[in-house]
Amino acid sequence: MKKHIQVIAFDADDTLWVNETYFREAEHQFANLLARFETENKIDQELFKMGIKNLLFYGYGVKGFVLSMIECALEISNYKIAPKQIEEILNIGKEMLSKPIELLDGVEDVLKALHGKYKLIFATKGDLLDQERKLEKSGLLQYFHHVEVMSDKKENDYKKLLAHLDINPKNLLMIGNSLKSDVLPLLSVGASAIHVPFHTTWIHEEATVDEQLENNYKTVHKLAEILPFL
Amino acid sequence: MKKHIQVIAFDADDTLWVNETYFREAEHQFANLLARFETENKIDQELFKMGIKNLLFYGYGVKGFVLSMIECALEISNYKIAPKQIEEILNIGKEMLSKPIELLDGVEDVLKALHGKYKLIFATKGDLLDQERKLEKSGLLQYFHHVEVMSDKKENDYKKLLAHLDINPKNLLMIGNSLKSDVLPLLSVGASAIHVPFHTTWIHEEATVDEQLENNYKTVHKLAEILPFL
Repeated sequence: MKKHIQVIAFDADDTLWVNETYFREAEHQFANLLARFETENKIDQELFKMGIKNLLFYGYGVKGFVLSMIECALEISNYKIAPKQIEEILNIGKEMLSKPIELLDGVEDVLKALHGKYKLIFATKGDLLDQERKLEKSGLLQYFHHVEVMSDKKENDYKKLLAHLDINPKNLLMIGNSLKSDVLPLLSVGASAIHVPFHTTWIHEEATVDEQLENNYKTVHKLAEILPFL
Repeated sequence: MKKHIQVIAFDADDTLWVNETYFREAEHQFANLLARFETENKIDQELFKMGIKNLLFYGYGVKGFVLSMIECALEISNYKIAPKQIEEILNIGKEMLSKPIELLDGVEDVLKALHGKYKLIFATKGDLLDQERKLEKSGLLQYFHHVEVMSDKKENDYKKLLAHLDINPKNLLMIGNSLKSDVLPLLSVGASAIHVPFHTTWIHEEATVDEQLENNYKTVHKLAEILPFL
């Protein structure tokens, strides 16, 4: 792997810092708000469906998530939700947008070790302003040569990124927690990938991999374990 | 001007296509929804204040605008707004996100004329997914060497863009409808600008210019009028 890698791209949410945990907490608060209408299990399922349905309109990120929570609350309550509870949903969103950044174990050491030896890229999905703000707050901005907030992470999105930054796919290594977004599309475009699973994955990001493909990327359990490959 | 310009950056909303008009229409629909609580004038003022207060959380774009409309409706109605009306606000937002693209007069001819002679850049504020989708729908994507959706358009944001694309400020010309976002910060970083006012400007984008600065940029009344300068 080492030989031809020149550029390393890092996913951010749940790769560099905690993110999915905050969504799970928000979903739990949301289910509590609606407890008089439905079970938490049903509310989780409906919110998930609403989020997927609305991806087309809102894309990824907190703002779209809040809009989907509001729409879901209207439906689940059969329009009986109280306006004060809508306000509480807005506040769940504002809290998410104001959370401090909690770096995952060893992240800064890894970036420090690789900085200067490789061109490091920040490549994440989500709301532009929110991701830029999180990167700023994290103190990690100084390690990255380039910051790319992507509206999606499919094969085609990576092709555009490679073209835009003039990178040969075989020189690129992507590191991330999502098989679906950070590993499989990279292999398809001819780049390399290392999978660093996080303990919580949004169902929408789950993927199954056929055994043959499993030989084409590495899996490590924490970020620091990528260093021996580099 | 012509001599040293190599890169031309275009703002999109209200420079290449209609945008602010849709926000004005949405505000009018919103005021109608709340007509039993307040006058349209008061509702407009409160929504404007809410939008500015929430810029910090949501940034620019339709999703943040919808979240601000909902928060404003709760406050103006003193929490008496009906859930069905919250749904109507969500629908105003989804309609905005689904609008067809209405190109402004002469836009495609101008891009065609400049494409190949200059490096053309798309530089706009707003929601990442929404702006990418609008560019795709517009049929104008083919004319641009680079697409940059920016979380803000202050002096510092342009400095980052110049560094990132390795452009000397004196080689850059920006074209846009907002004095505050597309003209003044460009002059501050040593680039050139042409102002193409649109008939409607969001109050937040209004700016006054001292007379001396007025000699440093040009104003034209439609996009095609930039061609004689290039």
